[in-house]
Amino acid sequence: MKILLPDTMDLDPTLPEGWEAAVVDAREEIPAEHHDAAALVVWGASRRHLASAAQNLHDLRLVQSLSAGVDGILAAGFAPEAPIATGAGLHSATVSEHALALLLSLVRRLPEARIAQEHHEWSDELGGLQPLHPQGRVTTLLEARVLIWGFGEIGQTLAPVLKSLGAHVRGVARSAGERSGFEVIAADDVLDALPETDVLIDILPASEQSTGALGREVFEALPDHAIVLNVGRGTTIDQAALLEALEEGRIGSAGIDVTDPEPLPAEDPLWDAPRLLITPHGAGGRPVGADERITRNLGALAAGEEILHTAAR
Amino acid sequence: MKILLPDTMDLDPTLPEGWEAAVVDAREEIPAEHHDAAALVVWGASRRHLASAAQNLHDLRLVQSLSAGVDGILAAGFAPEAPIATGAGLHSATVSEHALALLLSLVRRLPEARIAQEHHEWSDELGGLQPLHPQGRVTTLLEARVLIWGFGEIGQTLAPVLKSLGAHVRGVARSAGERSGFEVIAADDVLDALPETDVLIDILPASEQSTGALGREVFEALPDHAIVLNVGRGTTIDQAALLEALEEGRIGSAGIDVTDPEPLPAEDPLWDAPRLLITPHGAGGRPVGADERITRNLGALAAGEEILHTAAR
Ligand SMILES: NC(=O)c1ccc[n+]([C@@H]2O[C@H](COP(=O)([O-])OP(=O)(O)OC[C@H]3O[C@@H](n4cnc5c(N)ncnc54)[C@H](OP(=O)(O)O)[C@@H]3O)[C@@H](O)[C@H]2O)c1
Ligand SMILES: NC(=O)c1ccc[n+]([C@@H]2O[C@H](COP(=O)([O-])OP(=O)(O)OC[C@H]3O[C@@H](n4cnc5c(N)ncnc54)[C@H](OP(=O)(O)O)[C@@H]3O)[C@@H](O)[C@H]2O)c1
Repeated sequence: MKILLPDTMDLDPTLPEGWEAAVVDAREEIPAEHHDAAALVVWGASRRHLASAAQNLHDLRLVQSLSAGVDGILAAGFAPEAPIATGAGLHSATVSEHALALLLSLVRRLPEARIAQEHHEWSDELGGLQPLHPQGRVTTLLEARVLIWGFGEIGQTLAPVLKSLGAHVRGVARSAGERSGFEVIAADDVLDALPETDVLIDILPASEQSTGALGREVFEALPDHAIVLNVGRGTTIDQAALLEALEEGRIGSAGIDVTDPEPLPAEDPLWDAPRLLITPHGAGGRPVGADERITRNLGALAAGEEILHTAAR
Repeated sequence: MKILLPDTMDLDPTLPEGWEAAVVDAREEIPAEHHDAAALVVWGASRRHLASAAQNLHDLRLVQSLSAGVDGILAAGFAPEAPIATGAGLHSATVSEHALALLLSLVRRLPEARIAQEHHEWSDELGGLQPLHPQGRVTTLLEARVLIWGFGEIGQTLAPVLKSLGAHVRGVARSAGERSGFEVIAADDVLDALPETDVLIDILPASEQSTGALGREVFEALPDHAIVLNVGRGTTIDQAALLEALEEGRIGSAGIDVTDPEPLPAEDPLWDAPRLLITPHGAGGRPVGADERITRNLGALAAGEEILHTAAR
């Protein structure tokens, strides 16, 4: 049996007996000699690569993605015999770290400090004696009310870190309940929670339901000082509404690692939005524990056991 | 009995029976009517204010600072009858948060993202597929080796947060041992630890011994990719050596919240040092739990019990 590994990162999973691995170019079509592969690992694959795999790998029994979001793979049209396993959890630490970087940068006013530094200016406004909770601004996570919209693997990794920094954290998912010790409210009730939210963190996957989830209504319901982050998918924010909310001062500031489309075109007005930080989808991009996950799921496949984190289709 | 409170922040401590509070201008000399005060709270005081207090408050039995560093108060010449209590711990959460903000901003390359954003450029270098641990750069705290030089209240607040983000944390103090579950090495042995340090965080108090502690020898011993922070006191870094280390690429990047002198003069070349973030002493500046501390120590004074966190003189 054969597993195809992408050339986009160094991988060295432990294979079950009787299995061999071959490395393929993740940007190109699958060469004919590998059309017998039973498992395919996907990382940084082109649409062409995925289409060719979906069409030609007739014995395929596992598509193991190393991404948390598998919208691209789902769209490629793999046969239902091949379960698609997501890379859920492989990006939790890195994306959570990046969200924290964006958030603390905005909270601690580092973009403003940068401008003052360029002017060789020791700003009295950014330092010295300060009120702990100034009116109309979030300047510390102590006692800050944080809402994480999309409270899955990444959200549940980030939440305890924010809590340890003194924030009050709640999640939003499709259904309400308690997860990892945090209160989770249902997406249908989110509008009610927004006026009591100082920091809104979007970690939603792309889907029909999540498209434009953060729109004008959301930005209007938030307090004027609210900080908004998006480290999920660009499609989950209505970018025109975000731009307007920033320009009209209806939210405090924002940080986004994802846009729609990506790359964000040079002429997009979002680049120049006030109080907005943009990073070019750099939060994740480096699976942690990929070999272990491939080893685990390939072992399960060989033993006829349950594959971890299969995507609903 | 009378306690003098500064006008520089809102305070409302609970007073022992028989005590009264008066608010005084922390920038001015103490008015004659208050020369009978038995306790003085210091926050944002001018040198003039401190000198006048040291000279005129003959019945003084407690100087309660709300700052962690009391170098200025020690220099004012208070009589030995008045113990000087530091604000140790009141700034641990805020300074620790700021250190994390500076650190993550450098780790996640937000200053570079900012420049790319100004150019409307979706940088392939800052996003997309990335190695987890690229050669010659710290791009995540996962597995990063962090050394916190000055491992007191603030350092021990920051350490568990960094650990929860995947870093390996050690401290440096005057004597070796274990503190809060972290390995602490003695200052005398610090040079040996530097080559195995990815992130060096200075949280040293100002003192004769700590002056210029981070000098050329330290920057040379660190790996070229090392990130250096200072949220302690400006005097603890040899700024000329820091500038040189940054200019010559002998360290990766740096973030400093404190300088010597403060404000940093507009003509200081440090403003333009490459890969350096400067914030204007904004890490702390807002004591958390000040009323409780004053209440606690005034109660101890009234009851003849031990004052918390008195400074060695
Ligand atoms: N920026 C980056 O570099 C980067 C890297 C990796 C991942 N991501 C993005 O982050 C997303 C989340 O990753 P994850 O590992 O945390 O995924 P996950 O474990 O699948 O969690 C997704 C969460 O979103 C919730 N959700 C889904 N649709 C929703 C809707 N319409 N309304 C409200 N909640 C909804 C889910 O709710 P239920 O639990 O109720 O289903 C779940 O709590 C990925 O899908 C990917 O798009 C970005
Ligand atoms: N940037 C800001 O806004 C801000 C705000 C508050 C405080 N600070 C600064 O942060 C400093 C630390 O605050 P803290 O509350 O953590 O103080 P702390 O609890 O007194 O801790 C000081 C630590 O530094 C160590 N130390 C002192 N002198 C040393 C030396 N010469 N070599 C090596 N280690 C030495 C001490 O070691 P031992 O335990 O062995 O004595 C102790 O571990 C303050 O003094 C202040 O200057 C800055």
